Amino acid sequence: MNNSKKAVVLFSGGLDSTTVLVYALKQGYDVYPLTFSYGQRHAIEIKQSERTLEKYGLLDRQTIFSIDLTPFVNCSLINKNLEVPEFAENRIPSTYVPSRNLIFLSVASGFAETLGAEKIFIGVNSVDYSGYPDCRPEFVEAFNKTIAVGTKQGVESGIKVEAPILNMSKKEIVELGMSLGVDYSLTHSCYNPTPDGLSCGVCDSCRLRLEGFRQAGFTDPLKYAARKK
Amino acid sequence: MNNSKKAVVLFSGGLDSTTVLVYALKQGYDVYPLTFSYGQRHAIEIKQSERTLEKYGLLDRQTIFSIDLTPFVNCSLINKNLEVPEFAENRIPSTYVPSRNLIFLSVASGFAETLGAEKIFIGVNSVDYSGYPDCRPEFVEAFNKTIAVGTKQGVESGIKVEAPILNMSKKEIVELGMSLGVDYSLTHSCYNPTPDGLSCGVCDSCRLRLEGFRQAGFTDPLKYAARKK
Repeated sequence: MNNSKKAVVLFSGGLDSTTVLVYALKQGYDVYPLTFSYGQRHAIEIKQSERTLEKYGLLDRQTIFSIDLTPFVNCSLINKNLEVPEFAENRIPSTYVPSRNLIFLSVASGFAETLGAEKIFIGVNSVDYSGYPDCRPEFVEAFNKTIAVGTKQGVESGIKVEAPILNMSKKEIVELGMSLGVDYSLTHSCYNPTPDGLSCGVCDSCRLRLEGFRQAGFTDPLKYAARKK
Repeated sequence: MNNSKKAVVLFSGGLDSTTVLVYALKQGYDVYPLTFSYGQRHAIEIKQSERTLEKYGLLDRQTIFSIDLTPFVNCSLINKNLEVPEFAENRIPSTYVPSRNLIFLSVASGFAETLGAEKIFIGVNSVDYSGYPDCRPEFVEAFNKTIAVGTKQGVESGIKVEAPILNMSKKEIVELGMSLGVDYSLTHSCYNPTPDGLSCGVCDSCRLRLEGFRQAGFTDPLKYAARKK
């Protein structure tokens, strides 16, 4: 492991960020997983994230950063009184958490500065999540410009967000992950899991995941409460 | 008060942000003060911030957002084992909190989106604080680009950070504040106050403040433990 090449990896334990975590490891980075607890419905993700980190011996490197985004009530991922849509009909869905990736990347930037890390890896994806403004290439590009001029690390030795799956379809992400040996049975994607932790199989996130596996020619190892035909 | 023109104001209760708060009010904005509690030494600021808000009837509008930045230990404002420098000698002083303004503005962006606010006011200043990369015009400009493309509010109806004192000297800030009727006896600037809440008079922040009042031809109404000659 090359200690001079540190990277913060935003890691939720979901399919996308797990693929990115393993990708960063394979690139030789000394990985520091950063997981956010922000009052989301799918808090099970945080617990489940430990399973993948345990597999890669990274559990003692994980930072769980608590940030209360519940004042941002206009979002169905946080406000339990709003219904999670089965599929996004509007351009920007109600599962959009105001400025979420901006806040996450900003905190990651602070961590990267403290660690002296040169990279921040994030599993944003603009293909399946084009409705989210903070999952688009122009956002990542503008943010990189911001930390290049607006942080000590950026000014003195450089810091960069890398979003390796930004332009991949879910099919391509699953293909990449399978080629890297990702164990997807340890991941979790559902926005609206059942009380006993099963994925719903019908929310936006479950549907995209299942479709990705199907197109890639693999079977999703997760258990679902219901499967969309 | 014009309810269609909302603004989030980053408000610490210090000289700069108090000046900016009153400036935003005079511009006719419906002001929502956002105050951060982040484990800083000068937590007295948060308590004292209430005095100015009370004066302007904004106390019930204030949001105190707690975010634990203590993992960012390389900063003397947070890590009490590091000495606060009497005056910044290096280009980027040890009082630099990694990515602080980036994190604060990102959270403010989330609030602005939730409120439907078109502006975020921040009292950053590049003249006296040129050592902080996140107090420079290029940072504010790059951040504005980021929220324009990376937030729902930015994409749909526009959102902008305004930094009205960005290019002012401390003298000019005091002059502006005095012309707006700011009561500086209600503000607090010291990085390293005494246990009974007096300003130290010798830290970077105190020195700049005292010098600003002197140059503007006013007497600082604050009480100091020691005054730099």
